Amino acid sequence: MADAPLPPGGTIGILGGGQLARMLAMEAARLGLKTHIYCDEANAPAFDVAAQSTVGSYADRDALARFAGVVEVVTCEFENVPAETLEVAARVAPVFPSAKSFAVAQDRLTEKDFIRALDIAVVPYASVTSLADLCAAMRTVTLPALLKTRRFGYDGKGQVLIGNEAGAESAWAAIGRVPAVLEGLVRFEREVSVIVVRGQGGTLKFYDPVENVHENGILAVSRVPARISQSSGFAARSIAGKIAEALGHVGVLAVEMFERGADQPDLVVNEIAPRVHNSGHWTLDACLVSQFENHVRAICRWPLGETARHSDAIMTNLIGADVKKWRELAKEDGAAVHIYGKAEARAGRKMGHVTRLFPKS
Amino acid sequence: MADAPLPPGGTIGILGGGQLARMLAMEAARLGLKTHIYCDEANAPAFDVAAQSTVGSYADRDALARFAGVVEVVTCEFENVPAETLEVAARVAPVFPSAKSFAVAQDRLTEKDFIRALDIAVVPYASVTSLADLCAAMRTVTLPALLKTRRFGYDGKGQVLIGNEAGAESAWAAIGRVPAVLEGLVRFEREVSVIVVRGQGGTLKFYDPVENVHENGILAVSRVPARISQSSGFAARSIAGKIAEALGHVGVLAVEMFERGADQPDLVVNEIAPRVHNSGHWTLDACLVSQFENHVRAICRWPLGETARHSDAIMTNLIGADVKKWRELAKEDGAAVHIYGKAEARAGRKMGHVTRLFPKS
Repeated sequence: MADAPLPPGGTIGILGGGQLARMLAMEAARLGLKTHIYCDEANAPAFDVAAQSTVGSYADRDALARFAGVVEVVTCEFENVPAETLEVAARVAPVFPSAKSFAVAQDRLTEKDFIRALDIAVVPYASVTSLADLCAAMRTVTLPALLKTRRFGYDGKGQVLIGNEAGAESAWAAIGRVPAVLEGLVRFEREVSVIVVRGQGGTLKFYDPVENVHENGILAVSRVPARISQSSGFAARSIAGKIAEALGHVGVLAVEMFERGADQPDLVVNEIAPRVHNSGHWTLDACLVSQFENHVRAICRWPLGETARHSDAIMTNLIGADVKKWRELAKEDGAAVHIYGKAEARAGRKMGHVTRLFPKS
Repeated sequence: MADAPLPPGGTIGILGGGQLARMLAMEAARLGLKTHIYCDEANAPAFDVAAQSTVGSYADRDALARFAGVVEVVTCEFENVPAETLEVAARVAPVFPSAKSFAVAQDRLTEKDFIRALDIAVVPYASVTSLADLCAAMRTVTLPALLKTRRFGYDGKGQVLIGNEAGAESAWAAIGRVPAVLEGLVRFEREVSVIVVRGQGGTLKFYDPVENVHENGILAVSRVPARISQSSGFAARSIAGKIAEALGHVGVLAVEMFERGADQPDLVVNEIAPRVHNSGHWTLDACLVSQFENHVRAICRWPLGETARHSDAIMTNLIGADVKKWRELAKEDGAAVHIYGKAEARAGRKMGHVTRLFPKS
């Protein structure tokens, strides 16, 4: 592919076969690009909309090399992809985003260190590798605080709340005594995220900042425009751009932040995701070019597409049994229903989402 | 399926594997529905985005029955499907739209007789089954006129222009001496189409009337809103609804019309298509629920989705070598690029389209 964009007819390899891969595949198809899904689960949601699929372990070097050998570019739908998986693929095909974005995002300590080094505020945190560390950390990070594993946490998994000093030992046991960070709970007015896309030449494009509500550690609702000031919106974009730039990121990057204080709002970064993000799903319905299409454009060296929204939007996740309301939702004018094709509606599982559009404010 | 809607996870069988099937499959996937494409060509564009594909002849009764046996509902992306193909499928699974819609739309004479019987104006026409008929027809239909085969014509194929009486014999030879109609050329101000969707319970929903420009018999540009009066728009919708109703149509139906006379506009039906239609592609980008999703909703007994547009749109087809401009088009703000994944950019072949959005007027 070198310096030229991948022309229609070319194939994108996607590591992971969940709903993010599914929506990536559908938006790639819109541009005439084929997708090949590599996933360790059979019957993954993305298989239904991809030209080719491989079921294989992320540790199977031969299968990975074969997969990378039949695609023109490789990307990934989840941040916890093993470094070795990316390495094996990268020997055969270009991989975007590159290993650096994943290395930083996979480890909560590295992530916070990296962001703080850019002079961007992060939540108060301390590294924890032992119970003694944890006890020391509780003296610098005000309780209550969250003890989170450094790696493999998502959607509220791999974390436990510590209310007082007495809770240290059981918390340390609860997360399995693995390297962790203690994160201070920030009092915030609202949660905000910015979806930024960076092209291979360094071009940055931003979607409008999103206001998010989480429930039980899982994103419940995203609303755009976020009810924040213009200057706060500008600051949020600037933070996201700075991080994407510093990572040399290619593709979509999501930056989750807290807006603190009602009078003098300031922003504190909570976490980043080096991929298309749940808080950007509204872009499918409220923008001409979605986060998924723009990720595809970035990794395939196409010009980035327009990120302006034509409508206001409220996106609501359908989690677990919520998806059973599909009939009712389908009746609603102004609501776009998205269902991910997962067989089993387990509790806490993201089964779909609905985007409600409103005339642009 | 009976009277209940087909739930997410169910499978739609689509006869035909071109770009219409491809866009149907992508929009079905958005609702969590799978698709199985049946097509007589290998590597059809829709295969890349469908859960399953069968390459088979439309005359292969066994293959068709097997196909219909593994899907919950069958639909069709092209109007020239043989009646026997539908019959074989319908013995095994519900088929929407039903045979009647195809029977009427497949035959230009039946189509015009049917519409005229509804007291809807059609272009002047006469049946032609012999050279003698043709000579007689030329006395009732003013020349110049188009001699069109009754069956299997599309995109300007199967038709020849007759300028004067002397041209009769060669025209009759040119179309292969098959049953035909002679159609008078209507002097028109503009071409208009209406995309209507009818649910299984009889609910009708209309997209805004579209203004079309054809070049060499192929749709070149669709623009919405059409530059027609409100009363003309109302009349256009009412014509489309009347035809859908009379056919007992289920799914999307496109009705192409001419608007005659600048001062006292009236509408004359040119032809109908019992399927999603090129002049409705703009709905993918300018509406929350596209013609493709609404076709899927109708055949699967879902509630029909909102047809209102959130933006004005101009859709331009990318025909043949036009598709080579994809890089330029991708750079354009406000333009959504759609490429159909066809291997060869033959002249006259629909390779993609681009929709340009504008704030709603």
